[in-house]
Amino acid sequence: MSLEIHSSIQNRKSVRFFSEKTITKEILTLLFEAARWSPSCFNEQPWRFIYTLQKENPDGYGKILDCLATANQSWASNAPLLLIACTKTNFTYNNRPNTHSVYDVGQSMAILSIQAEVLGLSVHQMAGFDPKQAEELLSIPDGFRAITAAAAGYPANLNDLPSKIQAKESEPRKRHPLQDCVFEGKWGGNSGL
Amino acid sequence: MSLEIHSSIQNRKSVRFFSEKTITKEILTLLFEAARWSPSCFNEQPWRFIYTLQKENPDGYGKILDCLATANQSWASNAPLLLIACTKTNFTYNNRPNTHSVYDVGQSMAILSIQAEVLGLSVHQMAGFDPKQAEELLSIPDGFRAITAAAAGYPANLNDLPSKIQAKESEPRKRHPLQDCVFEGKWGGNSGL
Repeated sequence: MSLEIHSSIQNRKSVRFFSEKTITKEILTLLFEAARWSPSCFNEQPWRFIYTLQKENPDGYGKILDCLATANQSWASNAPLLLIACTKTNFTYNNRPNTHSVYDVGQSMAILSIQAEVLGLSVHQMAGFDPKQAEELLSIPDGFRAITAAAAGYPANLNDLPSKIQAKESEPRKRHPLQDCVFEGKWGGNSGL
Repeated sequence: MSLEIHSSIQNRKSVRFFSEKTITKEILTLLFEAARWSPSCFNEQPWRFIYTLQKENPDGYGKILDCLATANQSWASNAPLLLIACTKTNFTYNNRPNTHSVYDVGQSMAILSIQAEVLGLSVHQMAGFDPKQAEELLSIPDGFRAITAAAAGYPANLNDLPSKIQAKESEPRKRHPLQDCVFEGKWGGNSGL
């Protein structure tokens, strides 16, 4: 048994530079198929996705780009794919608030991101966008909320980028140590992992 | 290129019957390592996990089991591993509410679940538990909230189970069609996927 986590999880990275390689309909289908098979509370499947491809629909692409924070627009505008992930706020079966809906959209976007890595693409999620503007510009109806924006595409070849950017983009990802986030038995319990 | 989604995503299932096979420390480490490498807003990494193994810590296991809804206790009590996923509610850098923290815990649990599938285990998440009870019993401090419970282990061999249970556990998972949750350009836009 390998003592490493799966390569798609190990190598996943939110890149900011993308190649011009086109994302085909088949690839798009695989990304959203993966998201669709996520688990959700009461199998509500609260996620909804609105995407645009820059080349195929420049007007639609411009609308999503407009919703992003300025700092994100500067790099995301070279991504072939932009998307907004939405959630259905209430359960379908009883129309009461689904307090797990945002959590479940998070699950679907994580799984979409892992599938993207398997296919050689990178997904860069953004909290930095204007949900109200997105809801208006993209005709998101009452009962649904825009939760996350994301840019995606095949990562650029770092060798094609200026050396300063190469260095920044090559920085290893950082995480807290395992013992700071995993406890055995109760809060603070030493897991020995 | 394969036109199928990754097997760990395709085959992931929230089983209710587990084998007695032990979960080693190495496997546990891989599960939480995978979760730890999830993306998060401002790289806050709001997730915290409290786990217990039934055999190693029956008292701790009993505490988490106590927090589950009765309907979940009935099947989850045969899982070797129980866990509670928590979130840090405020950003560390400015102590203001992190409105993406629950979303990000969802991401980490989805990635943990995918890693589990890669290793032959199944993770069954539950909204059906008492977060307040968990926070008290497990000494979860102020500033953190219990979000999700989960049971995990190696799935039982279906052939060892009564035929009625076999049939129920073999039911295919169901999801809405892709065209109901993926739109092109704006809400309702036909994606053609």
